[in-house]
Amino acid sequence: MLLKFFYDEGLAQASYMVGCQASKEAFIIDPARDILPYIEAATKEGLRIVGALETHIHADFVAGSRELAKRLGAKMYLSDEGDKDWKYENISELPHQLVKDGDEIKLGNILFQVLHTPGHTPESLSFLVTDGGAKTEHPMGIFTGDFVFVGDVGRPDLLEKSAQKKGTADKGAKDMYASLSKLEGLPDYVQVWPGHGAGSACGKSLGAIPSSTIGYERRVNWAFQHDDMESFASELLEGQPEPPKYFGIMKQVNKVGPNFTLELRKPERLDDITILTKKIKEGAQVIDTREAALFSKEHIEGTINIPFNQAFTSWAGWIINYEQPLYLLTDPDKLEEIQKTLQSIGIDNLFYYMDVDLAIRMTSDLESYHDITPKEAKELLEEGAQVIDVRHDSEWKSGHIEGAKHIMLGTLLDRLEEVPEDRPLIIQCGSGVRSAIAISLLQAKGVKDVRNMLGGYARWQKDMQ
Amino acid sequence: MLLKFFYDEGLAQASYMVGCQASKEAFIIDPARDILPYIEAATKEGLRIVGALETHIHADFVAGSRELAKRLGAKMYLSDEGDKDWKYENISELPHQLVKDGDEIKLGNILFQVLHTPGHTPESLSFLVTDGGAKTEHPMGIFTGDFVFVGDVGRPDLLEKSAQKKGTADKGAKDMYASLSKLEGLPDYVQVWPGHGAGSACGKSLGAIPSSTIGYERRVNWAFQHDDMESFASELLEGQPEPPKYFGIMKQVNKVGPNFTLELRKPERLDDITILTKKIKEGAQVIDTREAALFSKEHIEGTINIPFNQAFTSWAGWIINYEQPLYLLTDPDKLEEIQKTLQSIGIDNLFYYMDVDLAIRMTSDLESYHDITPKEAKELLEEGAQVIDVRHDSEWKSGHIEGAKHIMLGTLLDRLEEVPEDRPLIIQCGSGVRSAIAISLLQAKGVKDVRNMLGGYARWQKDMQ
Amino acid sequence: MLLKFFYDEGLAQASYMVGCQASKEAFIIDPARDILPYIEAATKEGLRIVGALETHIHADFVAGSRELAKRLGAKMYLSDEGDKDWKYENISELPHQLVKDGDEIKLGNILFQVLHTPGHTPESLSFLVTDGGAKTEHPMGIFTGDFVFVGDVGRPDLLEKSAQKKGTADKGAKDMYASLSKLEGLPDYVQVWPGHGAGSACGKSLGAIPSSTIGYERRVNWAFQHDDMESFASELLEGQPEPPKYFGIMKQVNKVGPNFTLELRKPERLDDITILTKKIKEGAQVIDTREAALFSKEHIEGTINIPFNQAFTSWAGWIINYEQPLYLLTDPDKLEEIQKTLQSIGIDNLFYYMDVDLAIRMTSDLESYHDITPKEAKELLEEGAQVIDVRHDSEWKSGHIEGAKHIMLGTLLDRLEEVPEDRPLIIQCGSGVRSAIAISLLQAKGVKDVRNMLGGYARWQKDMQ
Amino acid sequence: MLLKFFYDEGLAQASYMVGCQASKEAFIIDPARDILPYIEAATKEGLRIVGALETHIHADFVAGSRELAKRLGAKMYLSDEGDKDWKYENISELPHQLVKDGDEIKLGNILFQVLHTPGHTPESLSFLVTDGGAKTEHPMGIFTGDFVFVGDVGRPDLLEKSAQKKGTADKGAKDMYASLSKLEGLPDYVQVWPGHGAGSACGKSLGAIPSSTIGYERRVNWAFQHDDMESFASELLEGQPEPPKYFGIMKQVNKVGPNFTLELRKPERLDDITILTKKIKEGAQVIDTREAALFSKEHIEGTINIPFNQAFTSWAGWIINYEQPLYLLTDPDKLEEIQKTLQSIGIDNLFYYMDVDLAIRMTSDLESYHDITPKEAKELLEEGAQVIDVRHDSEWKSGHIEGAKHIMLGTLLDRLEEVPEDRPLIIQCGSGVRSAIAISLLQAKGVKDVRNMLGGYARWQKDMQ
Repeated sequence: MLLKFFYDEGLAQASYMVGCQASKEAFIIDPARDILPYIEAATKEGLRIVGALETHIHADFVAGSRELAKRLGAKMYLSDEGDKDWKYENISELPHQLVKDGDEIKLGNILFQVLHTPGHTPESLSFLVTDGGAKTEHPMGIFTGDFVFVGDVGRPDLLEKSAQKKGTADKGAKDMYASLSKLEGLPDYVQVWPGHGAGSACGKSLGAIPSSTIGYERRVNWAFQHDDMESFASELLEGQPEPPKYFGIMKQVNKVGPNFTLELRKPERLDDITILTKKIKEGAQVIDTREAALFSKEHIEGTINIPFNQAFTSWAGWIINYEQPLYLLTDPDKLEEIQKTLQSIGIDNLFYYMDVDLAIRMTSDLESYHDITPKEAKELLEEGAQVIDVRHDSEWKSGHIEGAKHIMLGTLLDRLEEVPEDRPLIIQCGSGVRSAIAISLLQAKGVKDVRNMLGGYARWQKDMQ
Repeated sequence: MLLKFFYDEGLAQASYMVGCQASKEAFIIDPARDILPYIEAATKEGLRIVGALETHIHADFVAGSRELAKRLGAKMYLSDEGDKDWKYENISELPHQLVKDGDEIKLGNILFQVLHTPGHTPESLSFLVTDGGAKTEHPMGIFTGDFVFVGDVGRPDLLEKSAQKKGTADKGAKDMYASLSKLEGLPDYVQVWPGHGAGSACGKSLGAIPSSTIGYERRVNWAFQHDDMESFASELLEGQPEPPKYFGIMKQVNKVGPNFTLELRKPERLDDITILTKKIKEGAQVIDTREAALFSKEHIEGTINIPFNQAFTSWAGWIINYEQPLYLLTDPDKLEEIQKTLQSIGIDNLFYYMDVDLAIRMTSDLESYHDITPKEAKELLEEGAQVIDVRHDSEWKSGHIEGAKHIMLGTLLDRLEEVPEDRPLIIQCGSGVRSAIAISLLQAKGVKDVRNMLGGYARWQKDMQ
Repeated sequence: MLLKFFYDEGLAQASYMVGCQASKEAFIIDPARDILPYIEAATKEGLRIVGALETHIHADFVAGSRELAKRLGAKMYLSDEGDKDWKYENISELPHQLVKDGDEIKLGNILFQVLHTPGHTPESLSFLVTDGGAKTEHPMGIFTGDFVFVGDVGRPDLLEKSAQKKGTADKGAKDMYASLSKLEGLPDYVQVWPGHGAGSACGKSLGAIPSSTIGYERRVNWAFQHDDMESFASELLEGQPEPPKYFGIMKQVNKVGPNFTLELRKPERLDDITILTKKIKEGAQVIDTREAALFSKEHIEGTINIPFNQAFTSWAGWIINYEQPLYLLTDPDKLEEIQKTLQSIGIDNLFYYMDVDLAIRMTSDLESYHDITPKEAKELLEEGAQVIDVRHDSEWKSGHIEGAKHIMLGTLLDRLEEVPEDRPLIIQCGSGVRSAIAISLLQAKGVKDVRNMLGGYARWQKDMQ
Repeated sequence: MLLKFFYDEGLAQASYMVGCQASKEAFIIDPARDILPYIEAATKEGLRIVGALETHIHADFVAGSRELAKRLGAKMYLSDEGDKDWKYENISELPHQLVKDGDEIKLGNILFQVLHTPGHTPESLSFLVTDGGAKTEHPMGIFTGDFVFVGDVGRPDLLEKSAQKKGTADKGAKDMYASLSKLEGLPDYVQVWPGHGAGSACGKSLGAIPSSTIGYERRVNWAFQHDDMESFASELLEGQPEPPKYFGIMKQVNKVGPNFTLELRKPERLDDITILTKKIKEGAQVIDTREAALFSKEHIEGTINIPFNQAFTSWAGWIINYEQPLYLLTDPDKLEEIQKTLQSIGIDNLFYYMDVDLAIRMTSDLESYHDITPKEAKELLEEGAQVIDVRHDSEWKSGHIEGAKHIMLGTLLDRLEEVPEDRPLIIQCGSGVRSAIAISLLQAKGVKDVRNMLGGYARWQKDMQ
């Protein structure tokens, strides 16, 4: 048996290739949408990808299983658990097999045993792996998806929050408790290969260790330490962060299949700045992916700044409108990577782009914004300015600037009317990264009297001592 | 005034940007289809491209004027000379101005005077440039298109040969003679900025100097040394090489406009070798762009090898069928550059590609062919093998292997029935480069008993001494 | 706690970063010589590298611990076990701490317990990790170096074979047996993080799974199934492959420290082919790193072909003379990566390079060699040719061509006098990869009547059925 | 004959390759220090570089002739004109030939006639080229070096200003007048191939046209319109810009040969920020090559910002101390190109570099500076701030802010004591580019109360209307 880890840092999402060297075949567990890395790895190892295993209907990224099925003829192994709300749709023309608790799947000498482990979602599965090639009946490990993470378990409240399904959080928390007890029979030495690492919004305190073992989690993971369902459920639901707005869309996409063709067209290059500025005036959504330091100094009026760094996936999912054509101002060398990242969360409406350096040089009246230090902010506050704090609820709750107004960045576009227009604004977050995005949103929406507080709340606290 | 040279080595094609620093505007003379380099150069110099000047309807590449007009709103300045066969079509919705002999065009302080200089084609123009910014009335240079080259003049026989327009060669030769006499009034010091350099199929003995002067050409260029039209015409028509097959298509494309959209879609990536091999069996045209040394060692049966080097443009134009979808086996890192090259000669049917290394590794039964030395070839000839010589007519006429059969590479696909099937074949060209392409064509068409003669006729002569 | 895996595919070597998020410090376990990836990872996570833990004196790569100590001031934690032959030298001026069985090392909240686990080498250590940050006393995993691998244990015979230390193999095998029993007290759930993966020459049947658990290895790994030391030792020593020649050098380098400066100078670029050919005539060692298919077609006489692919590290270690200046013919874009690879096994004498494409084009008389199919090989054999089989001993023992002579590729340069000069040679390996290197060696040493058997013994067996 | 143009945009410097296709040999005229482009071009055309022609001892870049001689055995053709101050030194061991007015040099069929044309410098030569391959005795063109440019002639005052050679400017101006008269006999049609284009500091009004003709310059170039030596000399000397400080060094380097080895060592990578900050405290010169917008936001105290753009060469030559080791904070991907650029003007003391992103992330206390608009600047001025204008003399003379102090950027380090320390400073240039460099210099030297005026004098004028 061969096992290979794949990890998407933007999504904090883990996928896996399991190969049988005897049959020269491979499965991908929870494939991401960009399937090329799997194909390259399999080809290099002399394996053919014959199956894609889905632990559940993902909410945070577009799954690549349909793509593997369509392009390589790989068979999708999909959950048949959960009620009618949780059934995969539009799969009849793709090779697939629906599986339930207790089912077994073979890959050459390797055995995958299906466990139904609801909680994160009702249809969630885990796959217990035994390597017959090693002439053993001892299980080697278990793919847990968003059931058990290293140091945590999956959150059951995503759908309630992001898709407004009332009551599902509570039900999920109790399912999770039951699912955990299902692992009791597994030996300590079994490895745990989870679906996410630290930084994913699918759980609240995921560890920064790639994988673990049943025995270790049993002893150390907080979720295994409860012997009472209620206390477990209440600890589980406490303090979960706001799920990104796009989670609801993703869940739908993964359930019914994307309503887009799989192969993306290359966005059209714009050469003429007048066309772009005309589109901006008509309300086009234009994202500038440069670093905030460059954007603050000069940018085209009406454009939004989401810097292409590790947090890009998440904020793109919060801010970009999936229905409206997307224009990108970017370094053309990074276009392909940015498109792949957008594609990973289902943003397929990237229709146009323009070389940002050319665009800047072609524009005569550029906009900018100022940074200010906490000390300067304090003076402004005394003169009547207003602080907008765009951090998460949990950060806000653990301390904030007196008199500040709290609007989490991801919700800013929906709550524009709450932004006061009669006084200067100071935008503040934790370290100055999110506030830069927020300012670009406000400027693009016509709020011009804004400045960015350098260093965020962290530096405020330090400087105010 | 600012002047910048652009040179496409694959096409041996020259284009130019002329800018006026006072009005901050620029013209492009004979733009190639990929207009990005012009935009970047203009932006860098702080200029806006406001016009595209066409010397004539090109036969060897897709002109970029319509693209400049469509994307930047630049005005096209097009010839209104020549009879009804030589009129630009489908231009009514694009900004343009038809110009005739004697017309004047202004770009800020710079004056372009239009001269009708037929010969290469009936509507050919030249543009004489005077830099008013230098406060002078002395002309600085002349853009001659395919009229006067460094050391040569344009060939008048292209259309007769590539588009079967009978009698046009003779007529053109005489026009050319008259056009040359039109230059008599120009001062010696005027620079000559031609449309092609050495290696273009638009003339036969173009020099390897980027530009020249009227005075120098008048004294040194063979075409200026005749005082008799007949002798001039006969020297001009003598020994012109076969024009590439695609010239006829290009002429049409540039006249009526491309029947394709300007922005190309990115070809779809293939991941599954079985899809490709199925398509090959159904007759798809699949080009492998690796070096011949790699292709000869192992390649997928039914694929054609056109290595992506400097001769690629020309052989692609000869061999690729414009009507049929094109599949590419290539290094993905080179895909964009190859697509641009294909696009420069109007090949827009590149619909699919596959990483050639993956494809090779996924294929179990690979085909190969052998190289042989001239000495080994001689032995085979004595045993009854047949040499196929795929060089140009002029090369063949200046010496060849006894008993060889001559089929110019560009015509091989059309003359397959002339290839003997009852004996081993030895393919030979000048140096071994074209014969490698020829072998791949033959193998793809089912002729398998072939080998490549290393070093071509050059080495044969050396080794046989 | 944070854990990150690093894996060098050329060496099949694993190293690890363990970080404490509380103290913002990190350790590297068994760092490779190129320390930049560790620095980048640590910086990204906001950690400072404060220590380097060595499980043992490595024989297969240059350790990066001295470099981390010198450049970052990191403390080296080195084994103080083993007799005087196994002591680190020249470490007095670098921050370090010698550790013995039972010692404890702290990294913020994280505890590393030192276990002496000889067998692979006498001074070998393992490090048992407990994450105090998780408020637990349960150990999470153990770094085993070359003691326990996934599915195997380290080989004890390296030194006997590569450094001619008589009797050490037997002693090591017995130590290994004792060391394994030391693990008896560890819980099943403890993860095993080994020093190598599949493909390393430090063991014979390493699994293709990145990590394992004590409980799983205890049940499945062959080495844990013996209850008799003798039978264990004999199974362990049976069938170990020839250790690469450079292992003896590496062991010395890692013990006494490299006699080279840490920062490598960029090799000097050669521009003139005549200088290179002169050097070749004087006996310089010149490696051409192109693919074998390109090399076979044309190469400069006297050069050796080691294609830059995954097997490069290993064959470079076998073939390159560490004492003699090294010249490289290569694609300049790959120079830096190749130099890093050479550096990873201590080849620091890369003094000159030349762009291989320029060199080929500047050379008039190029050498080549022919490939032949097994069928053609058979005919040649009947006419008196000789097969040289360059595979490993174990491959030779499991079947070979009748009448073939066996000289393992790594030993070919030392056994040149055994190569017959009176008849044509056919070089054969398993698949045609190693035979290509062998032919280049032979040609460079003046043996010219050689050809490469396509597909190696695998294809021979298939074609001869 | 083959002619190829090479152009270094940073230096606005033109060099040329002339090849004879018959003898397969080439000359390089005024080669830049990086000789690889010439080698690649020659190899591609099948030519061997056999000679390097120097028009004069250059002051603005390190010539590549000695490198071509040393590495390829090319013969240097050097001026033997001028007095003892103008003789090449240390050339005895390199292939060379000293040439004087009237000498002839042959390259296959091509004839180079030497003309002594002093003025820019006393030993300046021009080379008149006749292409015998074209079976003509008509000259084709002339390489004029820094004698005649398109629209201008070389400045004779460089040495007086940059090397304090009194009286040489006047003498040179008169020589120039005489040299121009030497061209009288040349036909109008002869092309002029100059040593510089627009933007070079070697002349004051160079045209943006790559080449010209004798006849056109004779009619249009201002320098040919004088019939009185005095008026010519006075117009020539009027308004020449300050020559960069490094010109004096370059002149010496090109005369006596570089005192450095030709092949540069790769600078050593720094991994530890504490080492860098220690060096900065000790006074090391550390250049940060990021864009000013990034640098202004956060940079390491004591570092100087010279952004790596087209003006880099020039400001590096003004600011960097050639004697003191140079540390670079940069994107490692750009290191090689930056090193080449530094090398082109003889800065060979680049000994260390560090990845600027890593360095920034490793540093806790970063420095920044603020930009202000002209309006904000005006308010500050009224409160007692001081403007420092760092533009060229000629810019200053044509208008400046009232009360501003003028210190040209290139001289700022030498005139630090003139910078007032008792009030806030506003740094201003033409557009905001040079003032950013100036601010970094001031901050590095301990002047901290500085701000950058956005848009420079251009925007000031606009905003103050």
